[in-house]
Amino acid sequence: MGEIRLGLVGLGKIARDQHLPAIAATPGIALAGIASRHAGLPDLPSFATLEELLASGTPIDAVALCTPPQGRHELAAQALAAGKHVLLEKPPGATLAEIGPLEETARRKGLTLFATWHSRFAPAVEPLRERLAGQRMRSLLIQWKEDVRVWHPGQEWIWEPGGLGVFDPGINALSILTRILPFPVFLTEAALSFPANRAAPIAAALRFGAEQDGDFRAEFDWRQTGPQSWDIHLETEAERLTLSHGGARLERNGDLLLEAPEAEYRGIYRHFVDLIRAAACDVDLSPMIHVADAFMLGRRITVEAFHEA
Amino acid sequence: MGEIRLGLVGLGKIARDQHLPAIAATPGIALAGIASRHAGLPDLPSFATLEELLASGTPIDAVALCTPPQGRHELAAQALAAGKHVLLEKPPGATLAEIGPLEETARRKGLTLFATWHSRFAPAVEPLRERLAGQRMRSLLIQWKEDVRVWHPGQEWIWEPGGLGVFDPGINALSILTRILPFPVFLTEAALSFPANRAAPIAAALRFGAEQDGDFRAEFDWRQTGPQSWDIHLETEAERLTLSHGGARLERNGDLLLEAPEAEYRGIYRHFVDLIRAAACDVDLSPMIHVADAFMLGRRITVEAFHEA
Repeated sequence: MGEIRLGLVGLGKIARDQHLPAIAATPGIALAGIASRHAGLPDLPSFATLEELLASGTPIDAVALCTPPQGRHELAAQALAAGKHVLLEKPPGATLAEIGPLEETARRKGLTLFATWHSRFAPAVEPLRERLAGQRMRSLLIQWKEDVRVWHPGQEWIWEPGGLGVFDPGINALSILTRILPFPVFLTEAALSFPANRAAPIAAALRFGAEQDGDFRAEFDWRQTGPQSWDIHLETEAERLTLSHGGARLERNGDLLLEAPEAEYRGIYRHFVDLIRAAACDVDLSPMIHVADAFMLGRRITVEAFHEA
Repeated sequence: MGEIRLGLVGLGKIARDQHLPAIAATPGIALAGIASRHAGLPDLPSFATLEELLASGTPIDAVALCTPPQGRHELAAQALAAGKHVLLEKPPGATLAEIGPLEETARRKGLTLFATWHSRFAPAVEPLRERLAGQRMRSLLIQWKEDVRVWHPGQEWIWEPGGLGVFDPGINALSILTRILPFPVFLTEAALSFPANRAAPIAAALRFGAEQDGDFRAEFDWRQTGPQSWDIHLETEAERLTLSHGGARLERNGDLLLEAPEAEYRGIYRHFVDLIRAAACDVDLSPMIHVADAFMLGRRITVEAFHEA
C-alpha cells in the first residue's frame, strides 16, 4: 500500500497546533487537501467544504475531522459514503447514538473509523495501565483544572449545547481512566456548575462506583488560574502513583518513574496508519458514556456568569 | 425446570398496579417473597431489604427490581452475586455505564438479566414493526403527553437527578421508536423544560436525524390536562399510520387496523420465563442512550415552578 493521502477538515486551533505537525512527522501518511470555511494552506488544494473537496477529484484516501462535534456525523457519513477512511477528533460526535451507524457503515465497506482519544497516547498511560493490572485499588482522584481563557480562546461552540463545556478537557481524563483501570466504573453522583449565562458547565465534581470498594472521584474546573493541573492520583494496596502533566509523567511514592516528551498526536496518526493497513476500526465510546451519564444524572448548580474578556 | 420462584423488590405503585397481577397470570413463575421497606404481602415471606430476603433462606430463583432507578445497580449486583436471575424495571439504572458490568456478570454466571421496556409489549408494536420493515419513512411524530399529577402522585424520586422527569414516560415512547424503525436514528436537537424548582424536566422537544431523509420528532409533556396522548404518528411513502393508546391501537389512513387489550407486563413475565429457560440475557440500552444524549445535547429552558398539590 502506498502513502495514505489525507484530507483535513476544519483548520482551527487543534488542527494547526497538533494535527498538521503530527501528520508531517508520521511516515505512511501525507496531507493532500484541506476543507475549511475560513482558511487554506499554501501549496495544497483547499476547499470551503468537505463536499467540494470530495467532488474536486483531488485524490484522497482518508479524512481527519477536526471540526466541532456538533455536525461531525454528517461529515463522517459523507466521507464514508465516498469510500474514505475517517479519523474523528474527540469527542467523536454530539451524541452517543450517532456513532453506531457510522461504525456499521465503515465495517460494511471495509473502511477504517477511528474515534480518537489523544490523551490515551500520552507516554505514561500504557506503562500505568500495565502497572495497575495486577493491583487492588483503594482510591483514584482526577484533578483536571485549567484556565478556559488560556486554552479555549474564542471557542464559542464549546459553550453551546453539545459543546460539553469543561467536559471537553475532562473527557481526556475520562479517556485515560477508562483505559488504565482494570475494572469498569460507573457514575454514582455528579454536580455540574453552569455559569448563569452559559449552556455548558464550567466545573464538575464526579463520584464513581465500581463492583469493588474504593473511593473514585474526579474534579474538573475551568476557573483555574496560576498553576494548571492535569493529574490523576491513585492509591493501590502497594503504592501511591501520580500521573501528571496530562499523562507525560508518572511518579511512585513521590519518586519519578517515567517522564517523556508529549507526542500524543503522532501516536494517533501512527495508529490511524496501522488501522487503515489492517482494515480495522477503533471506536470506544466509554469516555463519552460517562459524560452523558453525568449530564443525565448530575445535579446542576448555577454559578457566576462567565465572560471571556 | 420447575416453577420459577420470584422475589419482588420494591412494593410501590408500579409493583402493585402491574407486576403483581402479571406474575399471578403467568404460568411458570410464582411470587415467593417480598422485599420492601414500607410494606409486605399477607401469606408471603416479607423483608425490609433484598439483603435480608437473600439471607433468610427463603427459596427464590429470580428477583424483579421495582425500586427507583437510583440504587438499582447495587440491588442487581447483590442478586446476581447470590446466583439469582434479575428483571429490571425501566429505566434499567441511573446511568448507562452501570449496566455493562451487570450483564457481564450475568453472562459469566449463566444467569438471566432482563432490562425490560414494557411498552415494547403493547399489542400493536410488533405488527407495526413488521409493517414498517419494507417501507420508506417520510416522518414520525411522537406525542407523549400526560398529567404528571395523575400518573406519578407523590413520586418525589422522579424529580431528582437520575429520576429523568418527563423522560420516565418518554423513554417508553423511545423504547417503541427504537423497536419499530428499520434504521437507527440519533438526536440532533433537544429542548428540555425544567421547572424553576425541580432538577428534572417537565417537558421535552426532540428532533432526530438518520442516514436517510425524513422528519423525525418527539414531544413529551407532563403538563397535559384533559385528554392524554401516548401516540406515534408515522408517514411512509405508502400510508399514514397512527399507533395510539401507548401501543394498544393501530390505525392506517384513519381506519382501525388493530386494537387489543393492554397486557404489557404479562408479556414481560412470559419473556422473562423464556429467557431464564434459555439461560439468555435481554439488555438493549438504546432507549436510554437517546435520553442521555438529550440531557447531554439538550438546550435547557426554565419554566414555571411545579408544585404537586
